[in-house]
Amino acid sequence: MKKIDLIIIGGSAAGMVTASTVRKFHKDKTILIIRDQPEVPVPCGIPYIFGTLKSSSEDIVPDKNMTDKNIDILIDRVIKVDLKEKIVETKTGKKFGYEKLVFATGSNPTIPSFIKGTELKNVYTITKYIYEIDALKDALKGLNKVVVIGGGFIGIEVSDEINKLKKNVTLISSSKNVLWKSFDEKFSSKVEESLINRGINLIKGKRATEIAGDGKVSHVVFNDGDKMEADAVILALGTRAKSELAKDAGLSLDETGAIMVDGYMRTSVKDVYAVGDCAHKTDFFTGKTSGVMLASIAAAEARIASLNMYGIVSSRKSLGTVSAFSTKVGNLVVASAGLTEMQSVEEGYDVIVGEASATDRHPGKFDDVSMQEVKLIFERRSGYIIGGQISGGVSVGEMINIIALAIQQRMTISEMVHLQIATHPLVTSAPTAYPIVMAALDALSKY
Amino acid sequence: MKKIDLIIIGGSAAGMVTASTVRKFHKDKTILIIRDQPEVPVPCGIPYIFGTLKSSSEDIVPDKNMTDKNIDILIDRVIKVDLKEKIVETKTGKKFGYEKLVFATGSNPTIPSFIKGTELKNVYTITKYIYEIDALKDALKGLNKVVVIGGGFIGIEVSDEINKLKKNVTLISSSKNVLWKSFDEKFSSKVEESLINRGINLIKGKRATEIAGDGKVSHVVFNDGDKMEADAVILALGTRAKSELAKDAGLSLDETGAIMVDGYMRTSVKDVYAVGDCAHKTDFFTGKTSGVMLASIAAAEARIASLNMYGIVSSRKSLGTVSAFSTKVGNLVVASAGLTEMQSVEEGYDVIVGEASATDRHPGKFDDVSMQEVKLIFERRSGYIIGGQISGGVSVGEMINIIALAIQQRMTISEMVHLQIATHPLVTSAPTAYPIVMAALDALSKY
Repeated sequence: MKKIDLIIIGGSAAGMVTASTVRKFHKDKTILIIRDQPEVPVPCGIPYIFGTLKSSSEDIVPDKNMTDKNIDILIDRVIKVDLKEKIVETKTGKKFGYEKLVFATGSNPTIPSFIKGTELKNVYTITKYIYEIDALKDALKGLNKVVVIGGGFIGIEVSDEINKLKKNVTLISSSKNVLWKSFDEKFSSKVEESLINRGINLIKGKRATEIAGDGKVSHVVFNDGDKMEADAVILALGTRAKSELAKDAGLSLDETGAIMVDGYMRTSVKDVYAVGDCAHKTDFFTGKTSGVMLASIAAAEARIASLNMYGIVSSRKSLGTVSAFSTKVGNLVVASAGLTEMQSVEEGYDVIVGEASATDRHPGKFDDVSMQEVKLIFERRSGYIIGGQISGGVSVGEMINIIALAIQQRMTISEMVHLQIATHPLVTSAPTAYPIVMAALDALSKY
Repeated sequence: MKKIDLIIIGGSAAGMVTASTVRKFHKDKTILIIRDQPEVPVPCGIPYIFGTLKSSSEDIVPDKNMTDKNIDILIDRVIKVDLKEKIVETKTGKKFGYEKLVFATGSNPTIPSFIKGTELKNVYTITKYIYEIDALKDALKGLNKVVVIGGGFIGIEVSDEINKLKKNVTLISSSKNVLWKSFDEKFSSKVEESLINRGINLIKGKRATEIAGDGKVSHVVFNDGDKMEADAVILALGTRAKSELAKDAGLSLDETGAIMVDGYMRTSVKDVYAVGDCAHKTDFFTGKTSGVMLASIAAAEARIASLNMYGIVSSRKSLGTVSAFSTKVGNLVVASAGLTEMQSVEEGYDVIVGEASATDRHPGKFDDVSMQEVKLIFERRSGYIIGGQISGGVSVGEMINIIALAIQQRMTISEMVHLQIATHPLVTSAPTAYPIVMAALDALSKY
């Protein structure tokens, strides 16, 4: 039986970053990724396969990124892990010994028990398997009325993309506002307005309770008894850690079913790690178990595991999830990091909020200028920044990372007010109006 | 004689931010800005008046921004300040008493003594006076061969803009590379390549020693004896603090002629402040006197002065200048914060450098994708980040602020490696390849 230094189960973001980071620091280790699909999509790019990209082939991560680094890939499914003997066994009967083992098995879309009829034909979820994505894209060709259930990021992005195929798209968000976990109402409203302007039928504050039809979907039933015709239903109601293999092997799971890990991504068994969607996460602020799953967090966790796998190179533990998100609907970019005002109040924080807006180029007479709106949330007494939201044009995608970094570095309102920033007429707002600084100043003035 | 709570001499970025910040915190104070020009241009927008904008009228800061906040503006020139009696006297004979006084008098372009003939007709500098900018733009209509001397930001931006007027533009940079104070060779070269591709004649590593002509410019003479025909010469060789008024009043100046201030922007006399280009600056790293003048620094200084003028609201002093810059030439955006590798080595730092590149959207199959290149410079032993440079598309303008913030917060290489960031296919690079994190990782691997 062949013994490999490092076996990684799963070949998406978490698995790839683990492999390439270990390789960067250890030229001599043998590394094997075992994954159960021939091609891996760029995970965050999946919604864009439906409309913007020509086909799923444009959203594939080249294996060359790994094989060029002398990282082996095996297309197979791991069916058993013997943690005691340190052996991994695959569906095709292969067995490998390992020195270190990393679970990067990802997540599956949630099939909600509170909606009946999810087993009907033409009910779909958004998975990370190319053949399933292709099958959905293919099926949509013959269908018109598409109902997407779930007002989170995936629901919104998939609705907007399928709308580009000139389908009749309805998005159902049971909450009062879309993206309510990441945005306060003002920012969610902008997204909703953009979706509606782009021709998407938005239904808010009502729950779908049943998907009905004779063998295949014909309509969706709501909690208030209303019915809506549908040719296809796409469930976008979150994801759950894929941890059956780890559980069967004897690893501890957390209350959400994710593989339990410590701050260095170590599981309950020596030499075994878990990273990415399948791994236990905590919230940066509360320390509570977090359900936020993002490729960016997966990559950060993979780096933590990799840098501390063969001796501790960087003893900085995972700080927990700061929930840094961005998305784009039409020309509108919205982004969020940390807690929303609503969440922070619910969690019991005494907060001070600051807001500001400015054009994203200056003077405002340039063509293609967008307005940026910034909202920052601070703990009143400590002054720590605990959240921020921005809307505007493309550069908001990087601007939110200024806030994400400020949160991680425990910056205070006073430090934010006095930030020195680079500004330039063609690429940022004016130095006199830079909205992150001005929002901090606005908050400071409210003490 | 009328007594005003706060008089600000100068109405550009530093003066306006001082006025509006004090107003935000003190509704009851009387505030008067005295400035010597009827209209104030957006300072960083000045180069764009020549090509991109239709006229200087598109680059004016509306007085409404001030007057709406109950801030008075007087168009006049302060000719005398009596610091003992606390009286300001203007050219038109007006006298005002003050409680607090702020010098925000700005800077003048340097007229170099090492170049002969600068007094000839058709020799210009880029000032902040609209009538002078208009006069230059007007004069250019009848002239073709324009020589810009100085390879800094102003020289480059003005060259690129005048080139848009279909003039024959030559840019002379006496240094080996343009923008050498802010970029290492690799990034400077990208700018040079872009300038040349856009049709600008670039001359590097030669000094202009004389501007020659009979009454008006006819040619430029170089240190090696070469000559070049020229209809107009624009001097872009830096700026000097405008501090004559302060000096005459008895304030201390530093060795560069800037008004001496402490960490709260207080001058040598009680109740008198100086902010912006006219005020003494120190370098964030070395503590040395710094010659870097930027509207963004002026705004930051104005906020420090304002927040500590009536009692100390935020005792965070000025940390010194981190030199955060960005500019755009064609579709290329380059940005820098902190020390370059060359500077850091010259200053005696023992550094580790990391580099990475990635597309600014992902997957790379999207239209209009730009490559981002990132270089980070760390102190080897402390691990502190001391500099960063980025090239790429528009979002680089905000991305550099992530680095600027990291420098100001004294982030270490390990903290940078483990940054959680927001990524999205349409607005950032991939989470697996985010180049700031990857450059930090690259540096960490070199220990």
